[in-house]
Amino acid sequence: MGRVQGRVESALGRLLPGRDIGPQRLHQGMRYAVLGGGKRVRPLLAFAAGEAASADPARVEVAACALECIHVYSLVHDDLPCMDDDVLRHGKPSCHIEYDEATALLVGDSLQALAFHLLAEHRVADDPATQLEMVKILASACGSRGMAGGQAIDLAAVGRTLTLPELEHLHMHKTGALIRASVALGARCSATLSSAELASLDDYAKCIGLAFQIVDDVLDCEASTATLGKTAGKDASDNKPTYVSVLGTAEARAMAEELRVQAHSALRNLKAGGTRLGELADFIVRRNF
Amino acid sequence: MGRVQGRVESALGRLLPGRDIGPQRLHQGMRYAVLGGGKRVRPLLAFAAGEAASADPARVEVAACALECIHVYSLVHDDLPCMDDDVLRHGKPSCHIEYDEATALLVGDSLQALAFHLLAEHRVADDPATQLEMVKILASACGSRGMAGGQAIDLAAVGRTLTLPELEHLHMHKTGALIRASVALGARCSATLSSAELASLDDYAKCIGLAFQIVDDVLDCEASTATLGKTAGKDASDNKPTYVSVLGTAEARAMAEELRVQAHSALRNLKAGGTRLGELADFIVRRNF
Repeated sequence: MGRVQGRVESALGRLLPGRDIGPQRLHQGMRYAVLGGGKRVRPLLAFAAGEAASADPARVEVAACALECIHVYSLVHDDLPCMDDDVLRHGKPSCHIEYDEATALLVGDSLQALAFHLLAEHRVADDPATQLEMVKILASACGSRGMAGGQAIDLAAVGRTLTLPELEHLHMHKTGALIRASVALGARCSATLSSAELASLDDYAKCIGLAFQIVDDVLDCEASTATLGKTAGKDASDNKPTYVSVLGTAEARAMAEELRVQAHSALRNLKAGGTRLGELADFIVRRNF
Repeated sequence: MGRVQGRVESALGRLLPGRDIGPQRLHQGMRYAVLGGGKRVRPLLAFAAGEAASADPARVEVAACALECIHVYSLVHDDLPCMDDDVLRHGKPSCHIEYDEATALLVGDSLQALAFHLLAEHRVADDPATQLEMVKILASACGSRGMAGGQAIDLAAVGRTLTLPELEHLHMHKTGALIRASVALGARCSATLSSAELASLDDYAKCIGLAFQIVDDVLDCEASTATLGKTAGKDASDNKPTYVSVLGTAEARAMAEELRVQAHSALRNLKAGGTRLGELADFIVRRNF
């Protein structure tokens, strides 16, 4: 995993506008937000799915960077005072603290545009039609019926008690959509997988997307700020519904474990195997940060 | 012009998620921000360029809606308290006043994603490769080296005295980039124009982009809030550099007129003529709202 993360870090450094290119403060803010932090879960998923499709890693790298740009833009906007108002991210001051709110707003906006620019500028698939499909998958995953919609559902849920299906609906959007897109994009970098295999990969992605969020909730409750690199215990203090508040820690962990098993069983339908995808499912559920 | 605006209004109403689709508050906010206001200059330009390329209006309509989504997202974010802090837009309360800041942030984010979704989902060009080029043109125009970059340059310029070239640099990004993209996208909806004709269209677009901003500055200074539908005189009270503050009103008007003439002369290189593009150049320079 460290190898993929190093590769993505270096690609992001190359694909982001340089710190000396104007407007400098904006470009420096983009680099500050993106580089040197984060688990790079979405790039790891894209690479693992790309491997299952025997895709050229040079293509997957671009798709992985686009996905990470979207993810980081969502964190930068999410940390703003009008949203979660969080001052710490990846163990350093949030973008709007290190820079200012207006710059952070534009950093997020620009990262979203950059993601689509990357997918359109570089060759990431066998043909332009597939590449266009990848643009559509990403746009759909991050828009009002995907990630941004999830944020809106989250806002509306603060202070309310959610049922388990409502909580799932929230997270299928907020984190699940981009995780599914990560697997879908990686798998489309080469046209080798059948539509049945792509559907199995999507089942896998749905399971680990949900498992990822459940584990996040458990860690937010159990781990320390130092380990997480973001403010721990914030969900509870913000009165946000979480898997822990709805199910309790033990049952939440059991649900994550069940989803891990389901994810593995979805991978059995892949002809070329999905060893690395399986390893990632294990990592996502068993991590402690 | 009214015909195109009516067509775009109705297409936007159809292409935006319905107000009853969840998350409802977000989708209602998107519709509130986009529908029922605005001069629709970018769609008008896309349709005029599409006509010069003999493109199917059904394709141009989608591209025009994508452009307008990007434009409106920029207005919604620009009106936020951390940016221009403006409470009035198109004669009604700004999105964050009618809804709230967090919703307005997500409305802007979602409209950007929707723009790319539209360009990728619908058939807007003769082949997927051209369509991918259109995605790239739009992403480039609205990113850190286009419109969002222009906002950052604008932030850095508040309270400073700019030279005329610095002011041009600012506006080539802030409004010019998306206006150029409007012409470029409309012209690519059908593969009939030569690269020389596309280059002439881009020259035209550069001229009217700048002229548009100059006239905006003059109007901000001379017209009333009621006529503009946004707070008049705000540039001066915000201590922002404008063409009026740098050149004075008379010289600013003369420069806009000169750019109008240049725009017309660029159109002479089009084989099929660009009557409507010429009319738009006249409208942009001679409007009083």
